[in-house]
Amino acid sequence: MQNSSDNVDNPDWIEAVRWNDDGLVPAIAQDAATGDILMMAWMNRKSLRLTAEEGHAIYWSRSRSKLWRKGETSGHQQIVKDIRLDCDEDVILLKVEQKGGIACHTGRRSCFYRTLKDGQWTSVEPVLKDPDAIYGSK
Amino acid sequence: MQNSSDNVDNPDWIEAVRWNDDGLVPAIAQDAATGDILMMAWMNRKSLRLTAEEGHAIYWSRSRSKLWRKGETSGHQQIVKDIRLDCDEDVILLKVEQKGGIACHTGRRSCFYRTLKDGQWTSVEPVLKDPDAIYGSK
Repeated sequence: MQNSSDNVDNPDWIEAVRWNDDGLVPAIAQDAATGDILMMAWMNRKSLRLTAEEGHAIYWSRSRSKLWRKGETSGHQQIVKDIRLDCDEDVILLKVEQKGGIACHTGRRSCFYRTLKDGQWTSVEPVLKDPDAIYGSK
Repeated sequence: MQNSSDNVDNPDWIEAVRWNDDGLVPAIAQDAATGDILMMAWMNRKSLRLTAEEGHAIYWSRSRSKLWRKGETSGHQQIVKDIRLDCDEDVILLKVEQKGGIACHTGRRSCFYRTLKDGQWTSVEPVLKDPDAIYGSK
């Protein structure tokens, strides 16, 4: 189980989501103003509940097995304007205002910065800010 | 394993994708013209390769365990304009032209037609065509 324990009674709208065997669903973040797709991450019940309560995106980090308060280190919070659910109830869409204009840890606006061109994944989006300047160099 | 067997040698750009333990990755379909997010489905290696070769979206149906040629029954094909890969190499984004203007099996433009409002998932997108008229009544 990648899910964190969460012993509170969740509201009906949380339980209406079809969580996978790990207690997670994919969550897409879209820029509410431009329509750009910024990233896709994962949520568990608690992260979705807190996202709705606090009004900014909180994901579940599968690699670190903990809540991931987007922007906590970088300042690149995602202010949530709308929370959508798909027809199969197993994907969340967040329409957000992206603080700092950067969603990706590479310093790019969107995580989807590579396009398939001539049989190769080719970067087509500029780095807006050096990741060392975002997260601090090690 | 939900993956179908696929004995061909896949090109490097297919193997560069970080397929999950079931041999799948999420694939988001976005309207290339309007930026609307239409749906999210899953792909295996073969469906991604065929999508690139044939130029229209072909997913992997987890419920039916077979290739899902989007639009085969409904006519609502998705003509692929761009294939993107995210920074973690584990999510695909397709920018598409949505034939018939309807992506969802409910007859709506987008599968993300419910918004969280006052603690309830509330439908906010109209049904453009009766599903019986799309798929034939049973």
